[in-house]
Amino acid sequence: MSDDNKHCLKLRRVGIDTYKENVAYLHRDCHLYRSAGFQALSKVEIHVDDNGRSILAVLNIVDDPRICGPEELGLGLEAFAQLQYPEGTPALIAHARPPGSISAVHRKIAGEPLDRADYAAIVREIAERRYAKIEMAAFLVACSEAGMDRDEVLYLTQAMVETGDQLSWNEPLVADKHCIGGIPGNRTSMLVVPIVAAHGMFIPKTSSRAITSPSGTSDTMEVLANVELPSELFNDIVRSQRGCLAWGGTSRLAPVDDILISVERPLSLDSPGQLVASILAKKVAAGATHLLVDIPMGPTAKVRTQQEAFRLRKLFEFVGDRIGLHLEVIITDGRQPIGRGIGPVLEARDVMQVLENHPDQPRDLREKALQLASRILEFDPDVRGGQGYLLARDILESGRALDKMQAIIELQGRNHSPPALGQLCHEVTAARAGVVSSIDNQQIARIARLAGAPMDQGAGVDLYCRLGDQVKAGEPLYAIRAEFPADFDFAREAAAADNGFAIGGEI
Amino acid sequence: MSDDNKHCLKLRRVGIDTYKENVAYLHRDCHLYRSAGFQALSKVEIHVDDNGRSILAVLNIVDDPRICGPEELGLGLEAFAQLQYPEGTPALIAHARPPGSISAVHRKIAGEPLDRADYAAIVREIAERRYAKIEMAAFLVACSEAGMDRDEVLYLTQAMVETGDQLSWNEPLVADKHCIGGIPGNRTSMLVVPIVAAHGMFIPKTSSRAITSPSGTSDTMEVLANVELPSELFNDIVRSQRGCLAWGGTSRLAPVDDILISVERPLSLDSPGQLVASILAKKVAAGATHLLVDIPMGPTAKVRTQQEAFRLRKLFEFVGDRIGLHLEVIITDGRQPIGRGIGPVLEARDVMQVLENHPDQPRDLREKALQLASRILEFDPDVRGGQGYLLARDILESGRALDKMQAIIELQGRNHSPPALGQLCHEVTAARAGVVSSIDNQQIARIARLAGAPMDQGAGVDLYCRLGDQVKAGEPLYAIRAEFPADFDFAREAAAADNGFAIGGEI
Repeated sequence: MSDDNKHCLKLRRVGIDTYKENVAYLHRDCHLYRSAGFQALSKVEIHVDDNGRSILAVLNIVDDPRICGPEELGLGLEAFAQLQYPEGTPALIAHARPPGSISAVHRKIAGEPLDRADYAAIVREIAERRYAKIEMAAFLVACSEAGMDRDEVLYLTQAMVETGDQLSWNEPLVADKHCIGGIPGNRTSMLVVPIVAAHGMFIPKTSSRAITSPSGTSDTMEVLANVELPSELFNDIVRSQRGCLAWGGTSRLAPVDDILISVERPLSLDSPGQLVASILAKKVAAGATHLLVDIPMGPTAKVRTQQEAFRLRKLFEFVGDRIGLHLEVIITDGRQPIGRGIGPVLEARDVMQVLENHPDQPRDLREKALQLASRILEFDPDVRGGQGYLLARDILESGRALDKMQAIIELQGRNHSPPALGQLCHEVTAARAGVVSSIDNQQIARIARLAGAPMDQGAGVDLYCRLGDQVKAGEPLYAIRAEFPADFDFAREAAAADNGFAIGGEI
Repeated sequence: MSDDNKHCLKLRRVGIDTYKENVAYLHRDCHLYRSAGFQALSKVEIHVDDNGRSILAVLNIVDDPRICGPEELGLGLEAFAQLQYPEGTPALIAHARPPGSISAVHRKIAGEPLDRADYAAIVREIAERRYAKIEMAAFLVACSEAGMDRDEVLYLTQAMVETGDQLSWNEPLVADKHCIGGIPGNRTSMLVVPIVAAHGMFIPKTSSRAITSPSGTSDTMEVLANVELPSELFNDIVRSQRGCLAWGGTSRLAPVDDILISVERPLSLDSPGQLVASILAKKVAAGATHLLVDIPMGPTAKVRTQQEAFRLRKLFEFVGDRIGLHLEVIITDGRQPIGRGIGPVLEARDVMQVLENHPDQPRDLREKALQLASRILEFDPDVRGGQGYLLARDILESGRALDKMQAIIELQGRNHSPPALGQLCHEVTAARAGVVSSIDNQQIARIARLAGAPMDQGAGVDLYCRLGDQVKAGEPLYAIRAEFPADFDFAREAAAADNGFAIGGEI
């Protein structure tokens, strides 16, 4: 193969994180680039020997030999990690054909429903990184809105489970809960897990960080304890405590879900089919047997009408039943944030107040957590129907939930120097007297994010009022907390333009 | 603004060509990245002072200070050129909001038709590079297939014309022709332009390079002459000769078309609406007043049925009429390649044979060129209806077309060392005796590309047989020509798997 040697380039690791997309870098003077007619953003296939791994990557052309020389083939961090050969290894590149399943994507664009084999092929090729971002965008848009029937959602879910690892806990009942999101505050997992685990039910909840919200369970829990655990420690804690609030190194669970989210999120695509497939694939892969899904409904929630909530519930039930989950859906009040604090430090304060039965605890957060916990407790065959709530309340009021939380915090690794509340404080006040008639979840979340949450743990919004409260003109509605002046200004400007509160007619 | 200074980074040019997408590079240790919570593939807005230009870019995170240091903000070549500030300039970055018109894209995804203002806003923001590739992919998929009504195609076309330069030739009649593509060979422009210009009609045809085909007019013309001309020279040649076959530096004509094509092409999206808008926007921007559109129809052409051809014709006519073009559509035989040669050198040979009235000239190429030229000549009010064909034939047979071509070649700059035909030659033979019953345009094009066309100018396919020809078993159907052994092997393998010819029952 003397002819091929002429085409060999030396692998080079290029220190650029291209986030879920493989990128290869060729120097503009590389003989291969010039002779083979690769164009920038062509997709190329890279392989090291005839039988070895090959990867696909998008091509960027480089003018600077400090990044990649004419005899080198640069690979971004993702691609380099995936190919798994050391720097300097001779490698070949060739024009890549589009992924074989792209023809199914074109059929989907043309309006045809796809079958189980189509979804399996698409998801497998996404897992193999054979899809470029724009190809995934094409797939997601084609599947968006009314574009997937419920069988298709099932096929997608199954394919996502099958292309990753699947945990098995050897427990008869592995409980989990999931909220579809969109409501600021709402840190119920940090209450539900201690209550349920204190009852002895097995709830190995893997928590995630905020993607577009001001705080996720992991962000808030991190105020109190370490949340990034090696999987052995995660498993040990779950075994001993029956519950955990951490990230247990589960990146191999339904990995295609993470890849698709990296395209959905910047596109703000959020179709019901993708939502259901994404949530259920992760839960099944994580070994859950029983799942409670929380769908908050309200004018500024993700789900805005009863009809929409109903359709989503049916879709969850359809897929859940067929994928072997005992699944229940609860539709909750999503008209306003839950709890007072929005942002990691503020939310951790609320959670601990509820666990400690503090007199000033946010009653709405407590009430919602008890509702969710009661439904999960009733998954237990030994709990009589209708007794879940009393049981949950007893566990909370007796301090057993707090004890459980403290035990979990100790084992995860207590944060002995917890972050402080942001020192910059600005109170947003009511422009007129009246009754709080609406609170815009999205605007409040946006202000909290602009203030710095979740990266600045002490930043966020601290709500003083709720729907139905009477306020006087000039009375503070909430405080913005920030750590850095620039963020503080951004958040104040956003609140000045629209503070997210509507005050109804004077009383 | 002492607070902002803290956030300033020094601009740095990063020598990476990211092809029609702005990319910014931040070091992982950059204080701004850490504090502001930018994630890889976030979109950021970059500005230099409060009133200056700002650009949007996708963010990549860098680990290597040779690419971009912690105090620097790296910009890829496209982004750096667009911002137009020197290296070292202090710059600010902020989270970018999605382009304002993305809400219209979401409405389109949901199935709503968009109005003129929507298309204007989308196209303007694409021109300003405020769209990421995945956002453009979302837009294109949403518009694909039956997704655009004809008013929408008109709005898109108008918006694309308005966001770029528009040439004005101060001529009463500016003729142009365009083929929608898909047929290998088919180099009619290199015959039509000399015939029409020899008649004195004004035809400043901007030629393009092959995108996915084995050769474009520019690639073939480059065998004979220089094709990348400064716009002054292009204009001078057009003025003196009434025609030209070159690229005249017209990148500012309907630039959004080029940007969208950079996403459509890798996705193989080719919807009628996008096709019509793309072609007509470029023609109107280039100052054409009269346009002949060639739609080849055949089982392996882009347009496969009479019905499809008819719909496409109507769409061209609808938009053409409303955008002020005198537009005619001709539906031609697209069942097989046109001419014998496929690839730059081979096609240039065919073209010159026709112009020289060579006894072995490919008759089909000559005939098609005469048909097209006759329709364009009849745009001239002084040419009597039905006389165009005789006029075109006379110009060709008299040698006036050849003279015109030679004059154009001289002025563009004759290639005095024209490339040779590829030295590697493999003849593909008929497996059985019979009649050639079909020739697959796509497979023949693919083999020619694998052989190296258009980058290797001497590579390609030289056809010996046409539809209806009788062949004996073992008789050569065509030759593969290549310059490099690796490409030669690829092409031979592809032909061995499927040679693109079907031979019907023995006679």
